[in-house]
Parts: sequence; structure tokens; C-alpha cells
Amino acid sequence: MFREMVYGRQAVRACLTANRRSAHVLRVLDDTRDLDDLIRLARQRGIPVERLSRDALNRLTANGAHQGVVLEAGPIPREDLRAWLEHLSGPRQVAIALDGIEDPRNFGAVIRSAAAFGAAGVLFTERRQAPLSPAAVKAAAGGVEYVPLVTVKNLPDAINRIREAGFWTTGLDMDGERNIWEADLSGRVMLVAGGEGRGLRRLVRERCDYLARIPLWPGVESLNVSVAAAIALAAARRGEWPDTAYRP
Amino acid sequence: MFREMVYGRQAVRACLTANRRSAHVLRVLDDTRDLDDLIRLARQRGIPVERLSRDALNRLTANGAHQGVVLEAGPIPREDLRAWLEHLSGPRQVAIALDGIEDPRNFGAVIRSAAAFGAAGVLFTERRQAPLSPAAVKAAAGGVEYVPLVTVKNLPDAINRIREAGFWTTGLDMDGERNIWEADLSGRVMLVAGGEGRGLRRLVRERCDYLARIPLWPGVESLNVSVAAAIALAAARRGEWPDTAYRP
Repeated sequence: MFREMVYGRQAVRACLTANRRSAHVLRVLDDTRDLDDLIRLARQRGIPVERLSRDALNRLTANGAHQGVVLEAGPIPREDLRAWLEHLSGPRQVAIALDGIEDPRNFGAVIRSAAAFGAAGVLFTERRQAPLSPAAVKAAAGGVEYVPLVTVKNLPDAINRIREAGFWTTGLDMDGERNIWEADLSGRVMLVAGGEGRGLRRLVRERCDYLARIPLWPGVESLNVSVAAAIALAAARRGEWPDTAYRP
Repeated sequence: MFREMVYGRQAVRACLTANRRSAHVLRVLDDTRDLDDLIRLARQRGIPVERLSRDALNRLTANGAHQGVVLEAGPIPREDLRAWLEHLSGPRQVAIALDGIEDPRNFGAVIRSAAAFGAAGVLFTERRQAPLSPAAVKAAAGGVEYVPLVTVKNLPDAINRIREAGFWTTGLDMDGERNIWEADLSGRVMLVAGGEGRGLRRLVRERCDYLARIPLWPGVESLNVSVAAAIALAAARRGEWPDTAYRP
């Protein structure tokens, strides 16, 4: 059975708290005293806890930044588009689809922001884009445990099926005809973000209901794609959840 | 005289276009044909152009991702707080101050977003935070050429002087009493963002006029600090520049 090493305090805490995937063993550094909350979380779930040396943890994580804690867990759950659409309910949903993002850190950063803004899913193709690598998982800072990750074979086809499910698909594009702050982002909204440097492919652009632009200072180059995605997610959610907050 | 190697097409183009610092020699890969626009920009400014081998460019940049182009330039200009405040004019300004950001990529990402949203400056202390390293400059994607970079010795003291210059200082904080989307971000606004993981220091928090929160999905960890900064900059600018756009 495929098992994955989840390491770093934030990632391990998110995995144990979200409780979406199986977890088999928690391994902690033998002389560390301040991991009590993670050890308690593991014990509550009946997960055995082992104490290991720093060398052993380094080997398990290929010298990753484990911060003294490694959780052996099942793979990050992914859904296909059909299953995701079937389980989705309710008239209000915000989700984001990625059209060929190349940098794993940007991919992970989008997942982190999607979690923070309560996205119903992050859609991506498994070919033609950054993999869900350790660098992506680390940049997601636990977000992979919360946001449904939805793999699609062909994004233009997927957009058709998403639209049939009642989503308004909003492509993020410098030539977008609508200002993101003036666009109607209520109901079921699927944001679509393109790859670094080249943006949305023509076929993807054409399938979107409309294209929205984030207004920028004239003459300046661009936004990072993960920043653009986060701003669009924030724009869609800005009238919601007045009682929660930015946590750095 | 201190000279700096600016490399990568986007960074070199931004340096030549912004024209804020001295530039001495443009070096391009000897067998590359698609650098004509950069060569033309350099010639327009009277900068000599040399053709070099890939090995030579690799050596000049310590194996950086130079994409066949290296510009030898003066250092990135920085101002001190007094000079910056003296030159600032006009009732509408958005700027951002950083309280101990630790990751050079996050530092660079904030500079990039500040440029994209027409910030009047990025303020930071040179101690106690990530340096303006090659990784930061690369993440800024040319932004260091456009945004005034303002060094301060002591951020709490700087906030007092900034407030005297008519800025409303808005600390970004999970416990902020105002929702960023409902805060008055008109006039002269100084956003203040804290370091990764620990946020604003108490002394900085206390000097701000008020603290604002970015509403997040309940129970989810946090935003990346560069994403939070970008959302706050975007929120401050959202009623402005309807005719410009997101460029991925």
C-alpha cells in the first residue's frame, strides 16, 4: 500500500485535524518535548507514536524540513470530476481550475489560498502542469488536507461539464472584459487561472463564460499567478464570513 | 564602484525600462537571436552590448537562471524614511511596511505585488528580516525597479513619523477589529504586514491606527504573508484603474 511521509508541524497538524486520509504512525524526535499537542492528536485517533533519532527522521524525509515530526499517512485524496460534481451540493460554491501552472510552489500556494477562502475544489490536469510534489505540498501549508483536489483529463471539456453543473466560469486574463471587482461572483463560481508567463490557452479562454481582469498599475509587468488566484478567491468571498480573520 | 548582475529577461527588461539605476554593459549569449528587443533598449540608452558564451554567462551569475542575458548595473536604489517622506506628494498614496518577513521569496513577492498595485513604497528594516538577496530580486520579477524601497531603522518609530505625514497605518492581523473589505482605505494608507508564523510584534501592533483582518474560512490555518499583503494592496486599490489588467 502506498504511504506518504507528511512532515513539518503545520502539515502534520493539518493532516491529523482534517482527518481525511488514513494515518499509520507518528514519528517524533526522541529528545523533543514540545510536540505534546501533535502526540495527543495522534493518540486520540489511535495512531501509534514512535520516538526516533534525528538521523532516522532525516533519512525518512530525505533531509526534508521535518521539525522533529513525521507522519506516515495514506496518499493525498484526489477525486475525478464526475465524482466531485456528484457530491457537490448547495447553490453557493467557489472553486478554481488551473490551466498549466508550472511552478510547484505556485501550485501549492494556490491550494493554500483555496483552503483559506473555503474553495470547494482545486481542479487541475495531471499532465501539462506542476506535480503535487513535496515542494507543492509544503507551499500548501496543510491546505492539501482541506481542499478537494480534482483531477481532470482535458480542461476545455471539463469547463463544459462544470458549466452544465451551474457554475459561472470566470477566466482570469489581462484582456478580460470585466473588472474582477465589478463582476458578479455570487452563486456557483469557477475561477480559471493560466500558467506563468503565458496565461490561459485559447481553447480554455473561449470556453469560459467571461474573462475578468484584476486592475493593475499601468505599465507594470504582472502579478504572480498564485497571487492573482488568491485575489480572485478573496474577491469572490469578500462579502462573507465577517467574524474570521487573516492568520499569518 | 559596486555593481550588480541583473539577469533573466524579465528582470533585465524591467531594469532597462524603469531606468532608475545606472547600467553599464549588457551581455547576451552569443548564439541567441531572440533578444533583439532587449538589445535595442540597451542601445537606446547608450549601453554597450557584448556577446559571450554560455559558460561565461554562467560564471557571471554563479549559475543563475540568466536566460542568455545579464546586465551589469548599479545597485538597487534605496531611500531612507526621511528622504522618502520629503519627496512624497499628493493626497492618495498606498504603501506597505514589513515587520520581520523571513523568507526572501516572500519579500520579493511583496515587492512584485506592490509594484503591480502602484505602491508608493515598500518599507523594511535591514536587520531582523530577509535580505534583498538574488532570490528576493527574482521573486520580485522586476518590481525592485519600480517600487521605492525604503529602509527604516526602527519600525515602531517609523510608524509615528509616517502617521505624522498623514498616513493611516493599517496593521494586518488575525485579531484585527475591522474587516479589510469594510475599512476606509482612501487617502494615504500604510499597510503593515508581520512575519511568517508570528505576525506583527506587539509594539508595531500598538502603533498602528487600527488592525484589519482578511476574513478567512473558519478553522483554516492561514494565508501566506505575501498573499495577505497582495490582497490588502488589491483591496486598497479596488476602486481605481478600471482600464488596466492582470497579466499572468
